[in-house]
Amino acid sequence: MPRLDAQQLETILHESFPEVREGTWRIEAVEDRYARVRLPYHRSNLRPGNTISGPALMTLADTAMYAAILAAIGPVLMAVTTALNINFMRKPTGDIIAECRLLKLGSRLAVGEVAMYADGETEMCAHATCTYSIPPESQRGE
Amino acid sequence: MPRLDAQQLETILHESFPEVREGTWRIEAVEDRYARVRLPYHRSNLRPGNTISGPALMTLADTAMYAAILAAIGPVLMAVTTALNINFMRKPTGDIIAECRLLKLGSRLAVGEVAMYADGETEMCAHATCTYSIPPESQRGE
Amino acid sequence: MPRLDAQQLETILHESFPEVREGTWRIEAVEDRYARVRLPYHRSNLRPGNTISGPALMTLADTAMYAAILAAIGPVLMAVTTALNINFMRKPTGDIIAECRLLKLGSRLAVGEVAMYADGETEMCAHATCTYSIPPESQRGE
Amino acid sequence: MPRLDAQQLETILHESFPEVREGTWRIEAVEDRYARVRLPYHRSNLRPGNTISGPALMTLADTAMYAAILAAIGPVLMAVTTALNINFMRKPTGDIIAECRLLKLGSRLAVGEVAMYADGETEMCAHATCTYSIPPESQRGE
Repeated sequence: MPRLDAQQLETILHESFPEVREGTWRIEAVEDRYARVRLPYHRSNLRPGNTISGPALMTLADTAMYAAILAAIGPVLMAVTTALNINFMRKPTGDIIAECRLLKLGSRLAVGEVAMYADGETEMCAHATCTYSIPPESQRGE
Repeated sequence: MPRLDAQQLETILHESFPEVREGTWRIEAVEDRYARVRLPYHRSNLRPGNTISGPALMTLADTAMYAAILAAIGPVLMAVTTALNINFMRKPTGDIIAECRLLKLGSRLAVGEVAMYADGETEMCAHATCTYSIPPESQRGE
Repeated sequence: MPRLDAQQLETILHESFPEVREGTWRIEAVEDRYARVRLPYHRSNLRPGNTISGPALMTLADTAMYAAILAAIGPVLMAVTTALNINFMRKPTGDIIAECRLLKLGSRLAVGEVAMYADGETEMCAHATCTYSIPPESQRGE
Repeated sequence: MPRLDAQQLETILHESFPEVREGTWRIEAVEDRYARVRLPYHRSNLRPGNTISGPALMTLADTAMYAAILAAIGPVLMAVTTALNINFMRKPTGDIIAECRLLKLGSRLAVGEVAMYADGETEMCAHATCTYSIPPESQRGE
């Protein structure tokens, strides 16, 4: 069972990233080792060609991974990305949905994959794998 | 010899990404198959722990790669990222410097690596490899 | 529908890699944009600690991707890997099963992901993403 | 200063991988956080088109990384790959030279990059980044 639900997670993330404007992303669902995050369409995420930019999708993938981990282990904000790999397969537009599944959740390390889709499409527009380092309990200070 | 110098490149990138605020990054140098880009310190790029966030570094890596390619081939704005892999090795703060070197520059595909350093440090904080797809001349419409 | 079934694929791969000893891997199943390949346990694939080595798993991932592509498009032997990313999550022993699904199958490029499991386990031991370049029809000479 | 020289390293690696035939690779040089490894040309490493196969290059990259780490920290054989990313840029033949530089060498984690060249060529044929997990001293049992 997740330790944080979608609403709690969204609140924590907005408090932790106070510079991110409201509505930049929404936590839509949280399940065991899973999170689904929506990136609503916004012109600031476009690149030449009027498709969603690579950095916007990378940021979304990383956010979905962070959400899946925090949902599973609680608000360990100092969990940090150590590696991310992403393939861009189609040029999307509109809202983007990211579905993160954790493939490994150890005490110190988590590995997950993130499938991203333009809302309503069945083919992935991008796919990421991501690794996070989780601080030991003694250093969490929470 | 590069086809665009640092100042031309900076102008083109700002016109192409009108939503990006001035000063988000600066093209510092352009050489043959090489670009150096600075990400000035800004609190909007911080993550919990007050270090520069992973997405800010990924965006910087992708920007440095785009800059190195456009410098080499001219303003082919429809060059698009097809894959990016990044390792985060140290938690940086302050300005970040990204140095991109192209490892391959074909007519349709470019591969490069990006070394990132906190300004003044000698050890990399992050390292990325990146692949771009370059549209064929007949489809550039420029 | 696949253009080659598991038996045809296995024959073609063994003819194409005559140095690979019989039984190194077996194509177990082929479906639309999917292949399942088994790496039978063999002591030559062990590393210190008596688990299956990283290179054996990388080779398996690449083989499963090649199999999934050739099953889908026919015996285009000059399809070549352009990138591979792999995460190792658990130290496996015994037979290893690789399941490759193609995420994109274009005329010139294919992207897939490969989930690997020790036979009988439900948690992945390794996960790879892989990109192949497919030669244009005019250059296949087959 | 490295703790193991090239000859010591080669001996240890051959003892640790007894199934690997002599001459499969040679440790050519070891320096601080650096190793250079040669993969001599052998027909068993060819793929269709008579170029060196992707798996042979991945194995070489992983071996060069293992060599660079063991040279730096001593014969910690249970250091294991946790992730590898590779880009293939040119189709090589002949001997292949791999040069590994460690970008980070922590007590528990190492990150490195590997440049690979066909012997005599100046352009890389492949580039890899690789992460290893290093067991804590209390668990090395050596």
